[in-house]
Amino acid sequence: MIIEKRKFIIPEFLLQSGPRLRNVEIGFETYGRLNETGTNAILVTHYFSGSSHAAGKFSDADVEPGYWDSIIGPGKAIDTDRFFVVSSDVISNMTPKLAHVVTTGPRSIDPETGKPYGASFPDVTIADFVEAQKLLCDSLGIRKLHAVAGPSMGALQAYEWAARFPDFVDRVVAVIGAGLHAEPYLHSMVETWRAMIELDRDFDGGNYIGNKEPDHGMAETLKLITVTALHPQYARRLFSHRPGAFDRALNDLTKERAKICDANSLVRLVRAVQSFDVRDRVDRMKAKFLVLPVTTDVMMHPEFAVRGADRLREAGLSVELHMIETDGGHLDGLSQVWKAADHIRRFLG
Amino acid sequence: MIIEKRKFIIPEFLLQSGPRLRNVEIGFETYGRLNETGTNAILVTHYFSGSSHAAGKFSDADVEPGYWDSIIGPGKAIDTDRFFVVSSDVISNMTPKLAHVVTTGPRSIDPETGKPYGASFPDVTIADFVEAQKLLCDSLGIRKLHAVAGPSMGALQAYEWAARFPDFVDRVVAVIGAGLHAEPYLHSMVETWRAMIELDRDFDGGNYIGNKEPDHGMAETLKLITVTALHPQYARRLFSHRPGAFDRALNDLTKERAKICDANSLVRLVRAVQSFDVRDRVDRMKAKFLVLPVTTDVMMHPEFAVRGADRLREAGLSVELHMIETDGGHLDGLSQVWKAADHIRRFLG
Repeated sequence: MIIEKRKFIIPEFLLQSGPRLRNVEIGFETYGRLNETGTNAILVTHYFSGSSHAAGKFSDADVEPGYWDSIIGPGKAIDTDRFFVVSSDVISNMTPKLAHVVTTGPRSIDPETGKPYGASFPDVTIADFVEAQKLLCDSLGIRKLHAVAGPSMGALQAYEWAARFPDFVDRVVAVIGAGLHAEPYLHSMVETWRAMIELDRDFDGGNYIGNKEPDHGMAETLKLITVTALHPQYARRLFSHRPGAFDRALNDLTKERAKICDANSLVRLVRAVQSFDVRDRVDRMKAKFLVLPVTTDVMMHPEFAVRGADRLREAGLSVELHMIETDGGHLDGLSQVWKAADHIRRFLG
Repeated sequence: MIIEKRKFIIPEFLLQSGPRLRNVEIGFETYGRLNETGTNAILVTHYFSGSSHAAGKFSDADVEPGYWDSIIGPGKAIDTDRFFVVSSDVISNMTPKLAHVVTTGPRSIDPETGKPYGASFPDVTIADFVEAQKLLCDSLGIRKLHAVAGPSMGALQAYEWAARFPDFVDRVVAVIGAGLHAEPYLHSMVETWRAMIELDRDFDGGNYIGNKEPDHGMAETLKLITVTALHPQYARRLFSHRPGAFDRALNDLTKERAKICDANSLVRLVRAVQSFDVRDRVDRMKAKFLVLPVTTDVMMHPEFAVRGADRLREAGLSVELHMIETDGGHLDGLSQVWKAADHIRRFLG
């Protein structure tokens, strides 16, 4: 599946926190075709450090396809022969330097000043991501979403969709989600990520653009994110017999990756996750839910998803919950999601 | 049980890494009495951020007793009516500013220069802690240890005892230990702790003594240590219904605690944990083992302890393993160890 990145521009965008942004740009990919009634669309929402590149390749030369390619494509669980799949970048995506990411965030030029926003970029929320996605859907002629599906922070967006646009979204597929709000543990965990990057002196209160960038702190932060998003067994399985091999793998991974990340953007995403809460809006929801935690997730613990599912059921909503059995932890919600392919296929009808 | 801190001085101490330290001081506490044959002693080895204060109070005014007071005392699992219990501070203890901690480490005065060692303090190992404890035991007239018992980094010391002095230690009680070496995951996890404190510009490559100390980085590092040593459910149980309460509790806890910690000392302990490995010395061991992981430990995962126990059994050693059922994670090896009191009592005979 060869796909292309497209760009959606929102001339004026009012953030939940009050400020108005001009010329908000977000990248998106689509797979499959929209039907004539505009009702066969599935929106895929991305995870914390991810992007809109959910499936396919930009060219045959790409080594890896998008992160959920195992379940998105012709004949796959999210069947692009039947569904029109849309995946978009969030505002303040944390990898704005990646060639195929299009996002308006702290690295973007503030039209008011002609300079990058930097530290002055306002706080964003999961709701902002969803509002932008709604405008994108409208622009594409989508009349109703057959489903919203996403892993991790993508699951938070899917829940927010159900709360914010109850008549627009029929189904929610929440993979490795955190339940219906940022649990205290998750809140404090992502706070350590923010603390790590802000400790780098080159972060300089967020005013690093044009100066030395906090690449060292970013690499350490990416290591921290990776370690806390894995299960202890994961490293044992892959690296047990080679002392230091896991550390070296983390170093190699994060040193390169740090160069495509932006610290202010990461900080905005941390706050977006921390402020997520749909508990008071469950009564407005109408969607059906498919909740898919990973058994070994030690960050967004499966129990959080179970409690969230209970709460949805108490409100009379239809909820299906299946554990994805893996030994690697949170990140298996990306690489091992194919284990839930049958559940997803059936749920989508 | 009112106890007192005493001080043991080693005039010359050769570290495993090569350097020789002069006048090494370590604090210790004893509970109960040594018998005439010097064979009823139990050594208690402390955890990463702990100290020799394992049981009792220094005065009636103390709010809390030592960390394992629930299992150490007259009539308790480690019965001080029967056993002579010794607990000592490690070299480079990370809380050297705490009144009752006695340790030679990076904050100590280097007799060669008359100034604090600071960044020049050499690397230390789990084996160094054990060698110092052996000298302490000898000085107290202990002829044989009935047992060595400790939680977390204390369990690593207990395993090291069995490998280093097989004829001196009859039993090992390893609570929330990491198995027989620093697993890759644990290695990388504690590496994030080191990275966090070293990112604080006030750390200054370890040369902060006499200047502004890296208290901010230390507070953030202590938060990180605490979050990664807890299970996600812990925070939910205690703080779920008060938004931000867990973060505030962590802030309160760590801001005060940062003032008694020393960054260079913490870094030395990280390296000591990372270099721990007794796998090649299992054949030398003779002790009986009681292995007590916590079911919800997401840092030193119970599976690590199980694999370690398997390896000991394969070498023909006697191993008893019981899971401590708790919902709070690693740190429950301190506060909930009483759940294993019967196992410990029986194991000690």
